[in-house]
Amino acid sequence: MRIDVLSLFPEMFGPLHDSIVGKALDRDELEVEVTDFRQYSTDKHGNVDDYPFGGGAGMLLQAQPIFDAMAATQKNAQESGHDKGRVILTDPAGVPFTQKVAENFAHEDHLTFICGHYEGYDERIRSLVTDEVSMGDYVLTGGELPAMVMIDAVSRLLPGVLGNEESAPGDSFSTGLLEYPQYTRPADFRGMKVPDILISGNHQKIDEWREIQSLKRTLLRRPDLLDQLKLTGDQKRKLSDIKIDLEDNQQ
Amino acid sequence: MRIDVLSLFPEMFGPLHDSIVGKALDRDELEVEVTDFRQYSTDKHGNVDDYPFGGGAGMLLQAQPIFDAMAATQKNAQESGHDKGRVILTDPAGVPFTQKVAENFAHEDHLTFICGHYEGYDERIRSLVTDEVSMGDYVLTGGELPAMVMIDAVSRLLPGVLGNEESAPGDSFSTGLLEYPQYTRPADFRGMKVPDILISGNHQKIDEWREIQSLKRTLLRRPDLLDQLKLTGDQKRKLSDIKIDLEDNQQ
Repeated sequence: MRIDVLSLFPEMFGPLHDSIVGKALDRDELEVEVTDFRQYSTDKHGNVDDYPFGGGAGMLLQAQPIFDAMAATQKNAQESGHDKGRVILTDPAGVPFTQKVAENFAHEDHLTFICGHYEGYDERIRSLVTDEVSMGDYVLTGGELPAMVMIDAVSRLLPGVLGNEESAPGDSFSTGLLEYPQYTRPADFRGMKVPDILISGNHQKIDEWREIQSLKRTLLRRPDLLDQLKLTGDQKRKLSDIKIDLEDNQQ
Repeated sequence: MRIDVLSLFPEMFGPLHDSIVGKALDRDELEVEVTDFRQYSTDKHGNVDDYPFGGGAGMLLQAQPIFDAMAATQKNAQESGHDKGRVILTDPAGVPFTQKVAENFAHEDHLTFICGHYEGYDERIRSLVTDEVSMGDYVLTGGELPAMVMIDAVSRLLPGVLGNEESAPGDSFSTGLLEYPQYTRPADFRGMKVPDILISGNHQKIDEWREIQSLKRTLLRRPDLLDQLKLTGDQKRKLSDIKIDLEDNQQ
């Protein structure tokens, strides 16, 4: 996969190499090119922003540097045998970024992230974009951190990038349930003890306990996830037992 | 404000200085201390993770290094006159991070972010935490990027950090509506023209157009945001006109 990033702060992308993305890069599963679109400004001072038409506070990113940087990276990618792929902009009006979106992106051959900054951007930039994605209902300084988050989420899904040790089947969202509580040594840490069942050696009972804990935590904290799942008959029975237990405890 | 970060990858936090956080640091509104909790491991090889009790793939972060790193940073913060503050862990089971949560955090004197990594962490670590926060329904390699996202969102809310140019009242979420389309020079970019109204010079009409565009975009793309708002009588009338227009266009 090739990832292009258009950003005014290319140096912000250094940390990617420390994350899972570094592994993907080392395995040649991934190539990341960060382009400073200021280099494409035709303004003699290298400006990339200007005042909004119609007045108002804030400076807007202009269309020209981003259009021209995009043309250059697309040409470059095409010459290396990549397709146009998806062009992604983070915007509060976009579709929420989820694991499904990440899986979707992971199947592409080429992704381009446009990182907005300043107060906003010229509306015409949206015409370049195939996917507007929202990271959540909050305001950030720029699109760099969201791009890094998406690149991290996508990279770990590329073939061969995660070793066994990191791709355990208990991952939240892979089963559709929240993860069960996990414990490692020591069994007694400053008076806080591991549940007996986990040191019983009875793996059937442990698996059962873990499934019940996952169901219970999901019920209590993210009941919306249960609505999206096709539970097995056994899971439904467990869930109904959990509900009865919880009601009993409230009385 | 003081922010402590407990992480195995302190070098990942370099980019913060390029973002708005750098401005907050320069203005002494903010102090960020990143602590490598591996330094607090009592294991002779400096290990911080171990196999899960009860079996299963993946390694879990152990309680001890994080408990001891936390005790040290809390002592240090207390000696500098800070309170215990909030201790934040990103977890898919947590409450969604929103602008409200960011505003909430921005009023604190001290925040500590614990960055998980590897497959998961020992359940007992949760006993240190005051806030479990979810960045969304997706899986990342570690808690570093989420911590940076939250630090960015919080920093820009600290007093004096944003200049006027970046804190325009049109920000999505500050009005509760999505932003209206914005345009900057040139008025005609490669055949794509700015709406005439924006170059009319009639500021009353421009404000009206912008409000209608904000309402329309929110209606089409994030109708859930409208439900949470107390619309004025004038906004309700505009919204009803927009709906009639949209229906007419569909026929």
